[in-house]
Amino acid sequence: MNIAVLGTGMVGRTIAGRLQELGHTVTVGTRDPQATLARSEPDAMGTAPYAVWAAAHDGIGSATFAGAAASAELIVNATSGAASLEVLSRAGNENLAGKVLVDIANPLDFSQGMPPTLFVKDTDSLGEQIQRTFPEAKVVKTLNTLNADLMVHPAALPEGSSVFVSGNDDDAKKTVTGLLEEFGHTDVIDLGDITTARGTEMLLPVWLRLWGALGTSAFNFKIVR
Amino acid sequence: MNIAVLGTGMVGRTIAGRLQELGHTVTVGTRDPQATLARSEPDAMGTAPYAVWAAAHDGIGSATFAGAAASAELIVNATSGAASLEVLSRAGNENLAGKVLVDIANPLDFSQGMPPTLFVKDTDSLGEQIQRTFPEAKVVKTLNTLNADLMVHPAALPEGSSVFVSGNDDDAKKTVTGLLEEFGHTDVIDLGDITTARGTEMLLPVWLRLWGALGTSAFNFKIVR
Repeated sequence: MNIAVLGTGMVGRTIAGRLQELGHTVTVGTRDPQATLARSEPDAMGTAPYAVWAAAHDGIGSATFAGAAASAELIVNATSGAASLEVLSRAGNENLAGKVLVDIANPLDFSQGMPPTLFVKDTDSLGEQIQRTFPEAKVVKTLNTLNADLMVHPAALPEGSSVFVSGNDDDAKKTVTGLLEEFGHTDVIDLGDITTARGTEMLLPVWLRLWGALGTSAFNFKIVR
Repeated sequence: MNIAVLGTGMVGRTIAGRLQELGHTVTVGTRDPQATLARSEPDAMGTAPYAVWAAAHDGIGSATFAGAAASAELIVNATSGAASLEVLSRAGNENLAGKVLVDIANPLDFSQGMPPTLFVKDTDSLGEQIQRTFPEAKVVKTLNTLNADLMVHPAALPEGSSVFVSGNDDDAKKTVTGLLEEFGHTDVIDLGDITTARGTEMLLPVWLRLWGALGTSAFNFKIVR
């Protein structure tokens, strides 16, 4: 599939690299590709410059958000929650319309310190905000409930675990479920329409406390039934 | 142990019955024991009258909230989230002080229809509200993340799953963890202080969607790591 991954952070890189490994054609979208590729210092989180990663992933193109989205059949929103609506607007409604838009962002608010809170919750969700803003896109919320490595290599855990899909379009959820199975997921639970993203986004607070209590982010929820 | 279970609904009955089965001395607290025992019709949820259950559980006493709490070493809040603070006030600060207070209520708000939302979340929690209101009680939030049957019979699931404890007092969490292990729980995760109850209370929205998607409440979260 021809896939655009919007976002050059750890999540975007991890998803893009895995998709290429699986044989997909991948373009990473960023605000200003030249500026992104020119950066030579690690970011505030200590993440290596994008150019270093891009050099090691020959064949993955870099483009503007709009350029990446325009040529893609499926678009992955791997930006921060706070930036998602603006980034998707830059990608352009006309480049999202009719396409599957995989939203893996979380509406984290770091303004009050750690742990972050959620800037939308309970009666609305980021997934719904995106669907309302881009009504012609087929938004599927998924993968926001585990760390980037486990998103694409769930078999790294000692046993199978669960991931979720939320969205209004059944065919879009089937397409995304297929990609998740390519990543190695064996239990993809369809929670229902995009409003069910309220549930998975509200998993973040316990995920953050589990990270603290367990001292590792290498864990995932399994729905035992 | 001498235990008071506050609340005569399905959760209270299930916890009380299981604690008695395990050899504990149990008193169920209710607003007006005579009125509760006089009721002869099922409630709005179709739950059989309390008197029918009580007759089948010889040896479990009924008392006012204050009467039950006064003689107990450990108190279980099994009331609805919306009623919890008022019920615990009726139980009386003096009857809770210095004791372990197990809070299994969820702050569900049914006023806007189904699914319910949460009347406190993200920057506060019901567990914290209870701890602030009764600062001398040793509040431990637990068991609010699975159905009543599985709370006390987790082995009914095909494999082990996880439950959580949140609280400021380590000894109180140890006592509660011991009770959970008596119930059959094999993976009790200590999330930290009572503020971590924000995480487990915010699990409810996805729990409710999973109930809908799976068509059963006989499931639980397992933290695979």
